[in-house]
Amino acid sequence: MSTEMTIKQYLDQKVELIEAELLESIPGIWNIPETLRESMMYSLMAGGKRLRPILMLAAVEALNGSTESAIPVACAVEMIHTYSLIHDDLPAMDDDDYRRGKLTNHKVYGEAMAILSGDALLTHAFYSVVQAYRIYEVPAERVLDIVEDLSRLAGAPGMVGGQAADMQGEQGLTRLEELEYIHTHKTSDLIVFSLKAGGHLAGANPKQLQALEKFGYNIGLAFQIQDDILDLIGDEKKLGKPVKSDEKQQKVTYPYFVGIEASQAKMNELVEQGKQAIINAGFPYSARLLELADFIVQRDR
Amino acid sequence: MSTEMTIKQYLDQKVELIEAELLESIPGIWNIPETLRESMMYSLMAGGKRLRPILMLAAVEALNGSTESAIPVACAVEMIHTYSLIHDDLPAMDDDDYRRGKLTNHKVYGEAMAILSGDALLTHAFYSVVQAYRIYEVPAERVLDIVEDLSRLAGAPGMVGGQAADMQGEQGLTRLEELEYIHTHKTSDLIVFSLKAGGHLAGANPKQLQALEKFGYNIGLAFQIQDDILDLIGDEKKLGKPVKSDEKQQKVTYPYFVGIEASQAKMNELVEQGKQAIINAGFPYSARLLELADFIVQRDR
Repeated sequence: MSTEMTIKQYLDQKVELIEAELLESIPGIWNIPETLRESMMYSLMAGGKRLRPILMLAAVEALNGSTESAIPVACAVEMIHTYSLIHDDLPAMDDDDYRRGKLTNHKVYGEAMAILSGDALLTHAFYSVVQAYRIYEVPAERVLDIVEDLSRLAGAPGMVGGQAADMQGEQGLTRLEELEYIHTHKTSDLIVFSLKAGGHLAGANPKQLQALEKFGYNIGLAFQIQDDILDLIGDEKKLGKPVKSDEKQQKVTYPYFVGIEASQAKMNELVEQGKQAIINAGFPYSARLLELADFIVQRDR
Repeated sequence: MSTEMTIKQYLDQKVELIEAELLESIPGIWNIPETLRESMMYSLMAGGKRLRPILMLAAVEALNGSTESAIPVACAVEMIHTYSLIHDDLPAMDDDDYRRGKLTNHKVYGEAMAILSGDALLTHAFYSVVQAYRIYEVPAERVLDIVEDLSRLAGAPGMVGGQAADMQGEQGLTRLEELEYIHTHKTSDLIVFSLKAGGHLAGANPKQLQALEKFGYNIGLAFQIQDDILDLIGDEKKLGKPVKSDEKQQKVTYPYFVGIEASQAKMNELVEQGKQAIINAGFPYSARLLELADFIVQRDR
């Protein structure tokens, strides 16, 4: 059974499943300008850890739900994540030429097409969510809860808000709270969405949903602190981007405020408290979900 | 009663209603970076004909449905329209400094914020749609039909696809069919959405939905042909942008292929056929909807 797999095998299996589904996620019969379709698929299939969809599937499994019916929503969150990377990399934003060792979307397809394929992926994510209802007959009310969560957690009060604060913060953050606002919204919110959507799909009770939210918030922030640390001390090849790129851009990171040791301690505390929330809420099969939290703080890229 | 108002009074009344709702459409209690909120509202409240939400409300009225419960969806389509204008105006796209006589979003807030506020408005549109279910208790299945239609008609196979084809077409269109593809997707699709959403909200039968779709397709294309004509012969002050701006950009328009007279004839034919579809499908109160179709071809801005 799945609990006998190592975490590495589990992750590999899920990545394979998700990438196979992403490959089919834009209907072939749709009449879409060829370059737009190519540009969307270029970034959607450009690799990455697929952490958000994996967390969603693990949340469904923790509740003994149907992972099959979660697939369209798992694809949706990866579309949102991908669009956010395409737009973040634009010259007017972070102006990055490479992402995961590959040329960024606008370096291949031009800025205008990169803007449009980001817009298209963002819009298509909502189409994909609806397919959980259309194809797998997930109750309409649950799917609307998911649409609403996605629109909030990926939108102005969520991920986009975090990105806007990050941009403005480049003129200088002075308080740790400002950085936590950015990390929470830029990173945690979409992780919270992934876990809550898993909960909605598998019919979680309110206590379980609340635990998934807390777990997501905590591991999201931990993930981002780890990112900040790796960017200072990590191995360039493993990361696929130049180490200290944040420092070079004079970006304020978590270790900047409290140092590396206290950052690591904070990260571990967040993960432990997140896991405790899951344990207290009584999930039937939470082992894998808890293991994923540990994986996040132990990863080296 | 409403049928006794002139079309001008009807439009003014609806614009007032829609703008009052748009003003309240982003919850005040949400913690959103102030500049992002400002930038979103700047473009959302920058005027315009509000044609898409008005068509939606007129479709609801034609079926004797509740216009109140349609308000969140009417706001949503205006958010989508607004985001598309913000992104279209960007330097990497059409590079416009003015829109409706006001500075474009990126001229006021910078490119990065303009990209983000477009993303935020696009995402928030889906939140707004869900409120038809949450606040006005429109059945969940109908609201999911609307979410799905919006994600398709505003996305890669719809509006964004039209925009991508338009951009690529700037290197030279050679056939009228290519221009019709662009006009259909860039303009008609969102009008089709507006009318179909009105139908879904008011419980239209399949024949009525099909008629709304045909009507929307036809008046959308007519609207765009009229736009092309006005851009050649219209009055600069009324349009709020320099006349012949398309020509200066060497943009291929409908009159370019068939001349102004044949363009006008095509436009009138589209409107007549669209109206006929509505008449044949048997709507209880379609007078205003039919009148709006005429308004579209008679407008001078």
